Amino acid sequence: MKIMVINCGSSSFKYQLLDMLTHTVLCSGLVERIGDTAGRLVHKKNPDTDTECKISEDGVFPDHTAGMMRVVALLTDPEAGVLRDLSEISACGHRVVQGGEEFIRSTLVTKEVLDNVRKLSPLAPLHNPAGIQGIEVVMKILPHCPSVAVFDTEFHATMPPHAYMYALPYAFYEENRVRRYGFHGTSHSYVSRKAADFLGKAPEDVNVVVCHLGNGCSISAVRAGKCVDTSMGLTPLAGVIMGTRCGDIDPAVPAYLCAQTGFSPEKIDSVLNRESGLKGICGLNDMRDIHAACAAGNAKAVLALDMFCYSIKKYIGAYYAVLGSLDALAFTAGIGENDDITRAAVCAGLEGLGIAVDPAANAVRSSEPRAISAGGAKVPVLVIPTNEELAIAQAVQRVLQER
Amino acid sequence: MKIMVINCGSSSFKYQLLDMLTHTVLCSGLVERIGDTAGRLVHKKNPDTDTECKISEDGVFPDHTAGMMRVVALLTDPEAGVLRDLSEISACGHRVVQGGEEFIRSTLVTKEVLDNVRKLSPLAPLHNPAGIQGIEVVMKILPHCPSVAVFDTEFHATMPPHAYMYALPYAFYEENRVRRYGFHGTSHSYVSRKAADFLGKAPEDVNVVVCHLGNGCSISAVRAGKCVDTSMGLTPLAGVIMGTRCGDIDPAVPAYLCAQTGFSPEKIDSVLNRESGLKGICGLNDMRDIHAACAAGNAKAVLALDMFCYSIKKYIGAYYAVLGSLDALAFTAGIGENDDITRAAVCAGLEGLGIAVDPAANAVRSSEPRAISAGGAKVPVLVIPTNEELAIAQAVQRVLQER
Repeated sequence: MKIMVINCGSSSFKYQLLDMLTHTVLCSGLVERIGDTAGRLVHKKNPDTDTECKISEDGVFPDHTAGMMRVVALLTDPEAGVLRDLSEISACGHRVVQGGEEFIRSTLVTKEVLDNVRKLSPLAPLHNPAGIQGIEVVMKILPHCPSVAVFDTEFHATMPPHAYMYALPYAFYEENRVRRYGFHGTSHSYVSRKAADFLGKAPEDVNVVVCHLGNGCSISAVRAGKCVDTSMGLTPLAGVIMGTRCGDIDPAVPAYLCAQTGFSPEKIDSVLNRESGLKGICGLNDMRDIHAACAAGNAKAVLALDMFCYSIKKYIGAYYAVLGSLDALAFTAGIGENDDITRAAVCAGLEGLGIAVDPAANAVRSSEPRAISAGGAKVPVLVIPTNEELAIAQAVQRVLQER
Repeated sequence: MKIMVINCGSSSFKYQLLDMLTHTVLCSGLVERIGDTAGRLVHKKNPDTDTECKISEDGVFPDHTAGMMRVVALLTDPEAGVLRDLSEISACGHRVVQGGEEFIRSTLVTKEVLDNVRKLSPLAPLHNPAGIQGIEVVMKILPHCPSVAVFDTEFHATMPPHAYMYALPYAFYEENRVRRYGFHGTSHSYVSRKAADFLGKAPEDVNVVVCHLGNGCSISAVRAGKCVDTSMGLTPLAGVIMGTRCGDIDPAVPAYLCAQTGFSPEKIDSVLNRESGLKGICGLNDMRDIHAACAAGNAKAVLALDMFCYSIKKYIGAYYAVLGSLDALAFTAGIGENDDITRAAVCAGLEGLGIAVDPAANAVRSSEPRAISAGGAKVPVLVIPTNEELAIAQAVQRVLQER
């Protein structure tokens, strides 16, 4: 079975075609600057293998449909292609950011489903319309290929009310759907299961704190395979500090800044999302640049890194208290998988919680799941590479099997 | 030495006259509804003793000066009074909410100090003007009595930058003074010292998490006598859930609610401060009413209590991680001192952190410092009655001695 995974942004989309028997990526790619006069497509056949074949094209893609038409042509291209016929694609999995309370599992897309996803757009105005667009394009270009929506929120649907409710007037929940939803669910689900695997246990038998640290960062508390709390909230702005997002701040700050600067609430919201986080403190939001600046003695870069690691440390403590006991602490995503300095700083001083990192194990670079905890430390500290595309494809497979 | 302590609100003030040799309260009182046509004064001589003498008066107090004139007259009244002469008052201590970065210790008030406190009013528009008013009235009515400003923020001045900075554009800190300040500092300082006392140790030798749970609620992490983090932020809105304040929420919520409801940022801010918290969830904000509603099967009251205790539990875990080890967990203020149900719920499931409550010890009501931890639990759980007036008077005494 071959499954296509599509992650659609407002002016770009990423895709991957996976063989579900072998879990190999047949091809992957990215179409950028859709609607621009200088669009670009990068397509890789057999990516990350010795036989990788990469095609980069400049082109004009007036809309997502045009971009997808070109991708579909490449899929069956005699040279760059990996399919004899498009009918070999069993289904398309689409990442949809916000599933609200309506979608608590991956769902085969029908017209009714699409309408309901559209109704959730006010909750994710930047993200859901893009996901919808991806689904519509596939329905048009590959009409015989079923689409499955896989929601970033669905893994968090098991949170209890005391974790997902905000202490706001109750009507804001009932009428405006204000609550904690959480995001990166596909990754948290995948990594927490992989962590259990690594320990040779069933997901139901372990409590895991997952630190997904990438462009966006979120932490989740997973009890016996089910998410019981997560750091992102109504939107992906909340929680730990991120590249350009502020994470948790006093909720009085936006109104104070409106009054102080004269900016509108929307403008402040944009600053909190795009000009804050690591970038707000030190002007940099790529962790490699920040490490270089720290090494060069840049005090603001040092502060930004300290703040970042501190905000993660506090969530680990909070979720330790929530779970009561911890069978694994798992790091994943770009920073979590590759940044040993961050991992060491986050875990420093947590010996009282049974958490300690072995410097040599932590320094090893690898794309395999691995333990980096110090000998004798009670809680295994793991690095578990995430694979959101595979997780989405697996979710699609489950939906197809349940049909 | 006799010291007068004044806690001034916008239309009311509380006062206490303390004998610093014996730490007894000579008299205390409250003037309310200043500027209203139906003002009220309650004055107690020898409060909370067998010889308590209580005077309640209805009257019109056009301004704080008028109210203070009446209080001053009562102080030397042959019947209700406790002084032969006003010159017996060595100094007045004033609670001032926001000391900014300028005032990191209690300060003898001069004209220059008062000007600088006034400059901090944008950071605490509801509170600092009231504190200033109290100081001005005393300077007018008791011109020979030195005034000392004691700031709610000063105990938190020892927080490191990675704890007090928000991940916002750095200019918001430099130009708009946006950072975590923390409040209830007088109580956190007093209770953390008392907790060390109770353990027979010096403050420098213990790490304490203090849970100040009253009308406002805040948690602080105190390492070796110094505050290293606290849950309130730029304003007293942040942190754990409170009676009518929301505590931590996704900072995108205000802008989302502005867009959804059409309310202004100031109106939303007022809702977050006055209509949220326990009251927002269940309509009640007095903990005794909430327990009664829970007992009567009110599901929203149960949810509100669950959310409240859960938000405290998460901070205890976070600050455990911050401190690395914990010598005491201390509960204080109205709910912290009197509500065994809350204390038990907060500590439930924290055995992994060495925290457990003994049900019998927890059920005892007392106004004395006491331990309520279970036998064998590693971390002493303490109930330490706070005394902000005494703490302010002691701060005044230190300032006078250092002159």
